[in-house]
Amino acid sequence: MTDCRGAAALLRGWDDILVLCHASPDGDTLGSACALVRGLRALGKRAWFICGDEIDGKYAHLTAGQPPFGWEPAHIISVDVAATDLLGPLEKEYGEKIELAIDHHSGHRPFARESWVEEDAAANCELIYLLLEEMGVKPDKVMADCLYTGLTTDTGCFRYPSVSPRTHRIAAELLELGAEGARINLEMFESKSKAQLEAERLVMESISFSCGGKCAMVQVPRSIYQRTGVRDSELEGVASLPRQVKGVLLGVILKEKEGGKVKASIRSNPPANAREIGESFGGGGHPGAAGCTLSGITLEQAAEKLEAACRAQLVKLGLL
Amino acid sequence: MTDCRGAAALLRGWDDILVLCHASPDGDTLGSACALVRGLRALGKRAWFICGDEIDGKYAHLTAGQPPFGWEPAHIISVDVAATDLLGPLEKEYGEKIELAIDHHSGHRPFARESWVEEDAAANCELIYLLLEEMGVKPDKVMADCLYTGLTTDTGCFRYPSVSPRTHRIAAELLELGAEGARINLEMFESKSKAQLEAERLVMESISFSCGGKCAMVQVPRSIYQRTGVRDSELEGVASLPRQVKGVLLGVILKEKEGGKVKASIRSNPPANAREIGESFGGGGHPGAAGCTLSGITLEQAAEKLEAACRAQLVKLGLL
Repeated sequence: MTDCRGAAALLRGWDDILVLCHASPDGDTLGSACALVRGLRALGKRAWFICGDEIDGKYAHLTAGQPPFGWEPAHIISVDVAATDLLGPLEKEYGEKIELAIDHHSGHRPFARESWVEEDAAANCELIYLLLEEMGVKPDKVMADCLYTGLTTDTGCFRYPSVSPRTHRIAAELLELGAEGARINLEMFESKSKAQLEAERLVMESISFSCGGKCAMVQVPRSIYQRTGVRDSELEGVASLPRQVKGVLLGVILKEKEGGKVKASIRSNPPANAREIGESFGGGGHPGAAGCTLSGITLEQAAEKLEAACRAQLVKLGLL
Repeated sequence: MTDCRGAAALLRGWDDILVLCHASPDGDTLGSACALVRGLRALGKRAWFICGDEIDGKYAHLTAGQPPFGWEPAHIISVDVAATDLLGPLEKEYGEKIELAIDHHSGHRPFARESWVEEDAAANCELIYLLLEEMGVKPDKVMADCLYTGLTTDTGCFRYPSVSPRTHRIAAELLELGAEGARINLEMFESKSKAQLEAERLVMESISFSCGGKCAMVQVPRSIYQRTGVRDSELEGVASLPRQVKGVLLGVILKEKEGGKVKASIRSNPPANAREIGESFGGGGHPGAAGCTLSGITLEQAAEKLEAACRAQLVKLGLL
């Protein structure tokens, strides 16, 4: 394990650096990678970042170009990646070559030669902000936008228990460095297509309650995509809706995927723990937000399994 | 006009202080009043706050008790009140007796003997935080919760363009003083009754678009309250939904009230201006969020009038 100073010392000595994001990329892994790559370039280094999955259009501002053809990285690092399998399609080529992992997940499973993991950071971008400071890079406007995007998306806009005084102080600094906080928040949280609006309405019609109202579940059949034209990434926000109902401790959303797979997103209010449930199905995440994928299963079967797991946890906690 | 030092000097010299909130009280007017009253008491003074309208249960933590029977205030101040008529039922008795107004609305219409108005403050609670600091009061945990509540509710959880580096720095300080940010955000933004969920779904079914998708409107007929059991205050969050649809510059929600009245809430994305529309019907607010009440009118008629006003503004801006 290393720390901010150690990570900065490593990076200062390196050039030709490739930064890896996690699959199904979000604002925090992309914001971290983009700000870090730009910061390394500000120090005169060659650096690029890549991601194994397609990047949603709303993250288009988190870009630093494609690595040029024929370029070979000399050093490989990962940002916001809790385990090698979360690299997705990049795992096979890079999974065992990572020299430095910078992460903030409490369930981080070490895989890199050196790891800097701070579970108290609300977003991985908090760590990248500190790292740039340590390396003597003053973030420009674009880097500030990248870091703000990670900060705000990983905290539900400064809403979650993970938010610390440091999170707010970094946000203040980033606004002073030119980050367009309000515009970014509008794009990240308050911008829906009509298809998305319609799909969310249909999904919420399916809400069902169990465990005396302490568990709420919604289902997203594949037909909804054809019916409304909504894209999968546009339904991310739905994950937080079931948990918002008063009295709900565990909110679950089940998305039907190709090939008999069902992806479950779990959100919890304390003392319930989403990560425990995600992990019990081979997934992972944070205490308040986790996920897992079930294979060879229908939506209905997945709903039964998840409900049973939620019930078991609530019983264990003495809440049922 | 006075400033923070001037307001602190006045308050230091006073005792028996009554603080007035605006009608239809929100987290910012109540948080301001409650924190200020508790701060004045910490200086050994007698102080209470009152509000002309009923206070929603979710603000139950913003309390400082009832003024004792027979107590007569010697000095009267208002917090977050932009004009005397916004005192509602308190206007008649107190409207002309206010010695100090502390407010952050850009449309503030002066009514007090002394006014401290800072339009750049994202929430009135920012000013109360500075005022307590100026008076040498270190906020205790309850005051910190009050101030955080105002900060987060008036900024949509640090989301709006009004949020400045100072807003985030004050939030950081308040968390360090013990404010339970995450719990407050959960209660303010992520807690819905089943009735509310159902009512929101019904309301969103009514969404209609005009002006080439630049204007979106939803209607809340009085029947929805009986049909779902939702309380009026539970439908506040709906106001932001129409504006969230991609391409919408003006989002309007119309609520049918008793006695042939219709209350309109307008939300805008730049360059559209909600306040201009609110003011054109005798209401007011901020550039991004405003409201007004129309009398002797049906929902349908109100919808026509509001749509015409939105269209006129978009034409004036060269957007139609």
